[in-house]
Amino acid sequence: MLDVFSPSDEQLPLLERMAADAKSFWKRGWLVGTCGNLSVKVNEQPLEMLVSASGLDKGALQTSDFLKVGPAGKILAPTPHKPSSEIGVHEVVYRRTQARACYHVHSVWNNLASQLFREQGSVMVENVEMLKGLAGFGLRDTLRLPIVDNSEDMTRLARNVDGGLNPKIPGVLVFQHGIYVWGRDQAEARRHVEILEFLMEYACRLRSYKQ
Amino acid sequence: MLDVFSPSDEQLPLLERMAADAKSFWKRGWLVGTCGNLSVKVNEQPLEMLVSASGLDKGALQTSDFLKVGPAGKILAPTPHKPSSEIGVHEVVYRRTQARACYHVHSVWNNLASQLFREQGSVMVENVEMLKGLAGFGLRDTLRLPIVDNSEDMTRLARNVDGGLNPKIPGVLVFQHGIYVWGRDQAEARRHVEILEFLMEYACRLRSYKQ
Amino acid sequence: MLDVFSPSDEQLPLLERMAADAKSFWKRGWLVGTCGNLSVKVNEQPLEMLVSASGLDKGALQTSDFLKVGPAGKILAPTPHKPSSEIGVHEVVYRRTQARACYHVHSVWNNLASQLFREQGSVMVENVEMLKGLAGFGLRDTLRLPIVDNSEDMTRLARNVDGGLNPKIPGVLVFQHGIYVWGRDQAEARRHVEILEFLMEYACRLRSYKQ
Amino acid sequence: MLDVFSPSDEQLPLLERMAADAKSFWKRGWLVGTCGNLSVKVNEQPLEMLVSASGLDKGALQTSDFLKVGPAGKILAPTPHKPSSEIGVHEVVYRRTQARACYHVHSVWNNLASQLFREQGSVMVENVEMLKGLAGFGLRDTLRLPIVDNSEDMTRLARNVDGGLNPKIPGVLVFQHGIYVWGRDQAEARRHVEILEFLMEYACRLRSYKQ
Repeated sequence: MLDVFSPSDEQLPLLERMAADAKSFWKRGWLVGTCGNLSVKVNEQPLEMLVSASGLDKGALQTSDFLKVGPAGKILAPTPHKPSSEIGVHEVVYRRTQARACYHVHSVWNNLASQLFREQGSVMVENVEMLKGLAGFGLRDTLRLPIVDNSEDMTRLARNVDGGLNPKIPGVLVFQHGIYVWGRDQAEARRHVEILEFLMEYACRLRSYKQ
Repeated sequence: MLDVFSPSDEQLPLLERMAADAKSFWKRGWLVGTCGNLSVKVNEQPLEMLVSASGLDKGALQTSDFLKVGPAGKILAPTPHKPSSEIGVHEVVYRRTQARACYHVHSVWNNLASQLFREQGSVMVENVEMLKGLAGFGLRDTLRLPIVDNSEDMTRLARNVDGGLNPKIPGVLVFQHGIYVWGRDQAEARRHVEILEFLMEYACRLRSYKQ
Repeated sequence: MLDVFSPSDEQLPLLERMAADAKSFWKRGWLVGTCGNLSVKVNEQPLEMLVSASGLDKGALQTSDFLKVGPAGKILAPTPHKPSSEIGVHEVVYRRTQARACYHVHSVWNNLASQLFREQGSVMVENVEMLKGLAGFGLRDTLRLPIVDNSEDMTRLARNVDGGLNPKIPGVLVFQHGIYVWGRDQAEARRHVEILEFLMEYACRLRSYKQ
Repeated sequence: MLDVFSPSDEQLPLLERMAADAKSFWKRGWLVGTCGNLSVKVNEQPLEMLVSASGLDKGALQTSDFLKVGPAGKILAPTPHKPSSEIGVHEVVYRRTQARACYHVHSVWNNLASQLFREQGSVMVENVEMLKGLAGFGLRDTLRLPIVDNSEDMTRLARNVDGGLNPKIPGVLVFQHGIYVWGRDQAEARRHVEILEFLMEYACRLRSYKQ
């Protein structure tokens, strides 16, 4: 039943776009050290995802650096690669939301935000215009970006994200780990990454003046 | 009376320049998340503007990503795009000043400056050489860059900018939103953006030492 | 006696190198807003300099964007351009030192350093390895980078730099203005810019922990 | 016994990779001002290393900008270049660890970290996901990145690094100097550089909130 994974004509642009988005994030310092991972959902029932392979330089991904996986990260086509060990989190995101793309990045500012605002359980941002770039948000909506515990146990990590995830908010911070961000398509996922990174930097810098 | 918008030979370089300036700002983190917008005035009476379409990635604008609009954002040529909802602010700028280009960017530092100096109603900068890069400014001129309230009502936002705008100062900060910057041509608008962003970062960093 | 300035075969690479160095500095945010200027000395007696024209975007200089000038900024070949108004400072540098290249950049950090350390009259850096990249400096040499007053009077500015300049130190900070940096050739001038900018950022950041 | 150094077919990609990694680090501001150096080990017994030449711009290295050296930095093939004076530190790294690539970079943040945490003798990082990118590290492992004294005497510097080096940790900070980082191959060395730089910036920024 397994075929060698060769992307279809509709899938190839998705992979090219993921590689380009990853390179853009890497340049900004959000995907250094081979950290992070990216996926798109290509089928709903049964769930099929194209996901970046584990351990590769995110500044130089090729379309051959992705895998096709199903529920529980089951590899659906022979590949020399291992899927990201955090595929279970992507699965939670696809199950709980309307997302068709999920990007996970690590930045100094999102790590800091998860630390500085840990006690509150979320990073609160309000009355900032950039909020309007988040799908469904207006200027008067308050963002409470959830912060969940990290875990080295991937099942537990997925459960933590599941527990913290609010489908009206397109991201979840993991304590001193990074952020999972999603959107209805890749353009929206990328927009959400750029906006949430902007807001995390803003929240952290602002706090430094208020000690 | 409507034609399909196809830029004239004089207009095409204006669009190419806007796309290039937008990409440059995006690289510096000032136009992330599809935020911001750019326009040039191509006719005075009646007012005609070329303006970036709403919701596009400002790091990858094409010349086909702009529209031709008139007063109150009236679309003057059929287009698949929507104009930026903030076109009314550009109109205020063109009515109140000699500007022929108006660039609106969102940066972490200009958001911070609008917060940290809100009570004063403006960001004051003096005796800084970079001021000389603002048209009409000498080293001894004090910059008081106005900060106006933000609004989700675009008519009100335009009125706020109108109320705060000082024609001798080529920019207005909107509280936790971004900055509108203009110039007599695109080169000047871009120069003013780079200088005002420099000065906002400088003012915020300097303040962190003076708490 | 005036010819149209067309660079000689030996001069062309100097101009290409200046344009490349300017672009590199602009990318780092040190030459934004058309600020700053660059020169090389091409003759000693009488003094002849190739200098960037005033008011141009330093991220996009062409070899045609330079002029040939003599003492007191006298233009030595017809040109559509104006020389930088700060050419007098370059002249001081060439008269007082062995420099054959002089680069003047404005950065947020060098402006901050000139403010934070103004009372001491210099920025002191010691026991930092990067000092070894400054010609003539070893690890045990203490850098006291002079800070001189700014002036809108260019003759006075040149005199201030003259008064503060220490020929053993390849740079002078001007209060809330920028830094003049030089070297025996362009490679050294550029190396000195990169090192002094590193050290100014380091000195300012370190100070923020010691308040 | 000496031949002119011309890299073998296996060595050429190593040099190309070193040049590319150096350029990437330079862009991030970690190898400015010609500082830093890079090497790979190409033979174990006797030790043979390919190392970047001294004093070159690390943003523009060519494959001809490397030398082949042996123990004590002995030049093994005629060359116009001088090897980095810090080759003795690389030798310590190759003797004490399984490394086949060693990269030495100077950043503002790694200099700051070496200052701010000097009294503790190391920079401690724990419970941060990025740790997992360091070979052999899990989320629960605490990083204590050693900080050793700097010296202008290269023999002493090598001895300091030898004294501080813990083979389970792929890097050593030198006080106000920079960081030596290594890996079993170039990809790992580069990954370790990116991760340790991330962690040093994180540790310094976090500390600024805890004064």
